Amino acid sequence: MISLLTDFGTADYFVGAVKGAILSVNPSAVIVDITHEIPPQDVAAGAFTLLAAYKTFPPRTIHMAVVDPGVGSTRRPIIVSANEQFFVGPDNGLFTYICDREPSQQIIHVTAERFFRRDVSTTFHGRDIFAPVAAALSNGVAVEEFGPEIDDAVRLPSLETPLRIIHIDRFGNCVTNITRDRAPGEIVVKGRTIREFRRFYGEGDEASLFAIWGSAGFLEISVNGGSAAQVLGVRVGEQIATKGTRST
Amino acid sequence: MISLLTDFGTADYFVGAVKGAILSVNPSAVIVDITHEIPPQDVAAGAFTLLAAYKTFPPRTIHMAVVDPGVGSTRRPIIVSANEQFFVGPDNGLFTYICDREPSQQIIHVTAERFFRRDVSTTFHGRDIFAPVAAALSNGVAVEEFGPEIDDAVRLPSLETPLRIIHIDRFGNCVTNITRDRAPGEIVVKGRTIREFRRFYGEGDEASLFAIWGSAGFLEISVNGGSAAQVLGVRVGEQIATKGTRST
Amino acid sequence: MISLLTDFGTADYFVGAVKGAILSVNPSAVIVDITHEIPPQDVAAGAFTLLAAYKTFPPRTIHMAVVDPGVGSTRRPIIVSANEQFFVGPDNGLFTYICDREPSQQIIHVTAERFFRRDVSTTFHGRDIFAPVAAALSNGVAVEEFGPEIDDAVRLPSLETPLRIIHIDRFGNCVTNITRDRAPGEIVVKGRTIREFRRFYGEGDEASLFAIWGSAGFLEISVNGGSAAQVLGVRVGEQIATKGTRST
Repeated sequence: MISLLTDFGTADYFVGAVKGAILSVNPSAVIVDITHEIPPQDVAAGAFTLLAAYKTFPPRTIHMAVVDPGVGSTRRPIIVSANEQFFVGPDNGLFTYICDREPSQQIIHVTAERFFRRDVSTTFHGRDIFAPVAAALSNGVAVEEFGPEIDDAVRLPSLETPLRIIHIDRFGNCVTNITRDRAPGEIVVKGRTIREFRRFYGEGDEASLFAIWGSAGFLEISVNGGSAAQVLGVRVGEQIATKGTRST
Repeated sequence: MISLLTDFGTADYFVGAVKGAILSVNPSAVIVDITHEIPPQDVAAGAFTLLAAYKTFPPRTIHMAVVDPGVGSTRRPIIVSANEQFFVGPDNGLFTYICDREPSQQIIHVTAERFFRRDVSTTFHGRDIFAPVAAALSNGVAVEEFGPEIDDAVRLPSLETPLRIIHIDRFGNCVTNITRDRAPGEIVVKGRTIREFRRFYGEGDEASLFAIWGSAGFLEISVNGGSAAQVLGVRVGEQIATKGTRST
Repeated sequence: MISLLTDFGTADYFVGAVKGAILSVNPSAVIVDITHEIPPQDVAAGAFTLLAAYKTFPPRTIHMAVVDPGVGSTRRPIIVSANEQFFVGPDNGLFTYICDREPSQQIIHVTAERFFRRDVSTTFHGRDIFAPVAAALSNGVAVEEFGPEIDDAVRLPSLETPLRIIHIDRFGNCVTNITRDRAPGEIVVKGRTIREFRRFYGEGDEASLFAIWGSAGFLEISVNGGSAAQVLGVRVGEQIATKGTRST
């Protein structure tokens, strides 16, 4: 099983070409789209979405993730082995949050060009490198055969600080980077103080902003039947403050 | 085979998490996306799209449908068994039109928590309840094992009255709730009377509005090479009137 | 394996209905989406995207492509056999670029109605004709059984002339119809002369426009970290000029 997470969009030939390249190497690969709508070249957004999805997949899943502004440059292709799963993609921090979450991991610099497509382009490694490498992994090739282990993979800045909004979902819920071990009494966003915590979206009064523990494991700011992001006028990256603590 | 119909959009981690949750319970499940672009929390839109798609799927298909503003509240998870297929989702009316169409059906209130994911969230039953229940069904668990039969499922208002536009498709075609057994002589929408009936979209004069029997079994209002919805300035829910009858 | 390329969008029931129709005929068909976001009724855009994706798929892949403004009229359904693959869709030029690229091909006019769904509609041949025909092909039915060979398939205007922008991708890269065998020294677009050629997107200075050989085999005009289409103010179809030649 190979999952795909990219910033390719779904209107171009990119996703189709990647799927064809995988199936050419392993015709019985089961391909599952996570998303192709990561904002173009937004590595941190890709890293968050992968973090929020990977745990639900079974052992031996191969996650191919491509958000790759450095395609064609000297940035390395890598395979991360963690949580009994594989993660294939560019070495630009995309797997930072997975590595932070998983107690043990192995990172391989993919150098074995015999697994690449012939005539690797400088603009589309998703098709020419990551797809055939993921497919070879799914065929049972041992991870060590792809290249040497490394310990200096590129890392994104911390997901933990500063306190901020790290994702806004389709419904306008604002996902913060606050986890249950540091649950606050109140949250302050753009000068507004949110004191109400709810257990589910449809609970209580419709109008007001509230906090809720979201399904990705982070505290979210929501408003019933509307977009909290719109009500607050915030974007991803907006810093927030907290007061007090609460037991959850 | 498990089909998915949701309002999750495709930009977030939601769809990926659902697919992972299904494949963790049944690694050989074949997952087919119907759509994830139902307008957020629009149960009636989800019900219509499911109605328009389900008949083409083979017997034993499991349709998992999640448009679920009441997630986390006391609304029940249900399984509808009809047309030799299963429908898994929230008890909020999403399956009303299927139940109206199918002569016999059985509705189960899903109470057997042993089929749920561990640590069910209050915000994402698609991942934590509906996905593993659908996957268990696909593994061959008998529908009776999930809970007791009920006869008081929540129902949407009738799809039959009042006469109105129930869907506008990507091409701007306006799908009405008029079926062949009550084919009108003329249709009046926003003060404009449509008298011309066509057999296919590209037929005849380009400019004018016309009526056509659409592929979902309803009368549609169209304009050749353009958007009838834009020409008419209408949205879903716009009421319409008819005059006379015609044989089809 | 059946790939899908359409202009159906992903918000309606169209794609789900097509997949159901395929799986009803061949429950073990592996369905792979290339895209459903071809601009509505833009046959040339569909033809380009198919051209850019088909080569990565393995032999025996069946590509079902539906961009079909003439649905319901007398335009013919066809199967093109080329590159050890099959292409199923309307006879309106959608497969022109494939046929130009492949040295040998066979084109069949699909007339054998026994492979169609019962009650073929006049508005949705994707579901009623192309899906079951593609599924029958995937079941091993010989292509000759679908109808007579023809040699007068509809063709689009040449992809080679005039020199122009034939596609703009999600990142704003402008794909031209210039191939390596006629590599120019300079490109002129909207009065701006582009002299710089780069090997990969992230190379060199951020600000300026440059040319690059793209992954579909055509010369592209790009700008680092931004949209070349926006910078240039161009759309698909914009004519371009070239000066000189270069060896690549």
